Amino acid sequence: MPPKALDYEQLNENVKKVQYAVRGELYLRASELQKEGKKIIFTNVGNPHALGQKPLTFPRQVVALCQAPFLLDDPNVGLIFPADAIAKAKHYLSLTSGGLGAYSDSRGLPGVRKEVAEFIERRDGYPSDPELIFLTDGASKGVMQILNTIIRGAGDGVLVPVPQYPLYSAAISLFGGSLVPYYLEETANWGLDVNNLRQSVAQARSKGITVRAMVIINPGNPTGQCLSEANLREILSFCFHENLVLLGDEVYQQNIYQDERPFISSRKVLLDMGPPISKEVQLVSFHTVSKGYWGECGQRGGYFEMTNIPPKSVEEIYKVASISLSPNVPAQIFMGLMVNPLKPGDISYEQYVRESKGILESLRRRARLMTDGFNSCRNVVCNFTEGAMYSFPQIRLPPRAIEAAKRAGKVPDVFYCLKLLEATGISTVPGSGFGQKEGLFHLRTTILPAEEDMPEIMASFKKFNDEFMEQYEDHRGYSRM
Amino acid sequence: MPPKALDYEQLNENVKKVQYAVRGELYLRASELQKEGKKIIFTNVGNPHALGQKPLTFPRQVVALCQAPFLLDDPNVGLIFPADAIAKAKHYLSLTSGGLGAYSDSRGLPGVRKEVAEFIERRDGYPSDPELIFLTDGASKGVMQILNTIIRGAGDGVLVPVPQYPLYSAAISLFGGSLVPYYLEETANWGLDVNNLRQSVAQARSKGITVRAMVIINPGNPTGQCLSEANLREILSFCFHENLVLLGDEVYQQNIYQDERPFISSRKVLLDMGPPISKEVQLVSFHTVSKGYWGECGQRGGYFEMTNIPPKSVEEIYKVASISLSPNVPAQIFMGLMVNPLKPGDISYEQYVRESKGILESLRRRARLMTDGFNSCRNVVCNFTEGAMYSFPQIRLPPRAIEAAKRAGKVPDVFYCLKLLEATGISTVPGSGFGQKEGLFHLRTTILPAEEDMPEIMASFKKFNDEFMEQYEDHRGYSRM
Repeated sequence: MPPKALDYEQLNENVKKVQYAVRGELYLRASELQKEGKKIIFTNVGNPHALGQKPLTFPRQVVALCQAPFLLDDPNVGLIFPADAIAKAKHYLSLTSGGLGAYSDSRGLPGVRKEVAEFIERRDGYPSDPELIFLTDGASKGVMQILNTIIRGAGDGVLVPVPQYPLYSAAISLFGGSLVPYYLEETANWGLDVNNLRQSVAQARSKGITVRAMVIINPGNPTGQCLSEANLREILSFCFHENLVLLGDEVYQQNIYQDERPFISSRKVLLDMGPPISKEVQLVSFHTVSKGYWGECGQRGGYFEMTNIPPKSVEEIYKVASISLSPNVPAQIFMGLMVNPLKPGDISYEQYVRESKGILESLRRRARLMTDGFNSCRNVVCNFTEGAMYSFPQIRLPPRAIEAAKRAGKVPDVFYCLKLLEATGISTVPGSGFGQKEGLFHLRTTILPAEEDMPEIMASFKKFNDEFMEQYEDHRGYSRM
Repeated sequence: MPPKALDYEQLNENVKKVQYAVRGELYLRASELQKEGKKIIFTNVGNPHALGQKPLTFPRQVVALCQAPFLLDDPNVGLIFPADAIAKAKHYLSLTSGGLGAYSDSRGLPGVRKEVAEFIERRDGYPSDPELIFLTDGASKGVMQILNTIIRGAGDGVLVPVPQYPLYSAAISLFGGSLVPYYLEETANWGLDVNNLRQSVAQARSKGITVRAMVIINPGNPTGQCLSEANLREILSFCFHENLVLLGDEVYQQNIYQDERPFISSRKVLLDMGPPISKEVQLVSFHTVSKGYWGECGQRGGYFEMTNIPPKSVEEIYKVASISLSPNVPAQIFMGLMVNPLKPGDISYEQYVRESKGILESLRRRARLMTDGFNSCRNVVCNFTEGAMYSFPQIRLPPRAIEAAKRAGKVPDVFYCLKLLEATGISTVPGSGFGQKEGLFHLRTTILPAEEDMPEIMASFKKFNDEFMEQYEDHRGYSRM
């Protein structure tokens, strides 16, 4: 038989080039082990509810009522739902045209986009236009759509931090563009040095690549750093001079674990800078209901906001969004609830504050526990997780471990992470999945295991690691930073 | 300033080429008129709940409980939820790992995929493998992913029926492939003639296009025809001999309004045919929770099932699905509930049957009302809607109307539909958005307006149409079929 279109050899080459380590070899092996009955701690993906985080009660009450609007007429509804949840459900149902079962506008419900715009205005101090806000099935879908709009071919480059969240490398491969890496400085707590950006752009140009856009992830994934206002100004100024669209991945804006650098949005800094920069730099910012203290990953809700994008381009983005009709409506309601939360005096306010503070404070403690745990291990150094949901320790693999990995046909950090998984059930992602400097090795783990489990997990990690190092060290020298 | 990457002129040309009429000029104008206070009847998109169809009660109860799992411990829960809904909610929660807020596997929850496989086996009489079933955020996302996997460039062609649902033309443009049209026969109730397929493939080849896949929509959208088993055998045999992947869009499989040709799946016919065809033809079939008597469009739930696709290709498809992490989990539960419905004896069974039969029988009556209504209008002829959710009447526009349209700078059927919208508030989609033979004009409308509103809507249509024809007829001759 001749080859067929869905035979492997015949597939779109861009599809085959895609790599996505967060659900790659390690995850697949962990899933196998789980099937075989081994207890797996899935720290490969920022998926808080999978590790026991409870959903916030109030938004769940509201969305449950929206799913079952017939309950609003039930005389007993007040026995199990508080009055403010009932009122909010009525509010959000009034924003739909036909409830949760009807497609919304392809950009999302106008009423929810208005609430997002009001949130952005309160946050940044500048008005925001709901017509420039598109709701999406999670932030990833929005990132993919914008990259698909920008990338015309292999000559188009996108600046991406290294280490990076592999959504970016995967989407750039899928759309046939070129990833232009810029390195974050591990020794400066994963800081972003604008001189590195200049070098990266110059190198890409020398290869004939037109750099068209730049991605920042703030707070950083997998690196956890929070960008300072001064740093953001440098970045925006760089984008202005180099004529780059800035994609601001700000999905972790609620996840901040230090007080020196609170979250500040790219958009606020851009507008603070005034003309010409504030009028010229094209910015797309992303947010989600999956992170923060919400962690509603499975609902798939997100938005992007466009600044300085011409109306004709916005129309094109709208048109392409229309092909898949509408983002899911329940998650749009979660987004509305997230950006327009309860206020003091509301019946459910105290419970809401107690739950969200509880999650956030625990995450802060876990960030510290994890960093300290890693730094207590032989040949492991780890920057503090200033924000987001991850630790990204450097693992200084002894040469003999690197040789053993080569013999096993594995990248050294994959080798290490597989051994860790088999020994402890801890499912991490090797640093090579995010990019790292040649000869250095890392892994990414979320800080999401339940706080009470954390001491045991870190002890189990330390035991594995220190034995691994003992086994492979030849007491002459290690790979070094 | 130099041009910027998100300026219109600078965008990915494939993005600009996309056309998607279902939410195109007519829809945008209808939305404007609605803002201005005009009452609009949105029949542009198959969105039943937006036109007053009530959701089925039982699945909504189950998903509401899954959203609010804390209710399962509430002593009062039995006052407003039936016991079988409570049991089903517990069942589906047990299939998740962390409830609706946790990402599932990127292919969907294993337990729900198993229920889908069991449904397919009951339907077709052949076992189905859950590992070859991927849940998606609506069927459209699945179609897009498969087309993206197949299309390597402009030299790759996909056979698409004309008229077609513009998801296909839009996605093929976006991924840079070539649409190869094959014409459905309006005079044979939109039947599919395999000779037309051969001609289309020959023509495409003469232009240097490799035809790699074929799309069928059964029941048809916008054309409403149901394919016979004999016809499906011809199609599969054609795919075998021409080495084409078959994409079977079967989202309307529950929407059948005649008894001569019940729905039969492509997969059943394929497997019935035996080797070599049953072992060789690559088939991907699509289904959804948005259509049928469910109409849960806003939830965005769907699946695709792969037959004869090699494991290495399935892995690639899995990898790309992983980039956006997981389909939304609430809609996965709707899918489980749809494929694994209540059984006689269950507490809620009678209500469930009453509701679903009520919707389906009413749709059948509306299909008839609408066809008859169109056929009572001057210069309008309309095939009966055998299945799906649409009428696609031919509008025989008089030459003077065509001239008037040209003077207004509009495609003639767009001109007609805009006038219809302004006069009556009925928001349809011009036939040119789906493709039609040169010189013929159509429109698509859903059969979804509430049954009690139907006589008034059809009267309003007839009044507009007959006056329009009166105005533009010169009593010498019309455009003819």
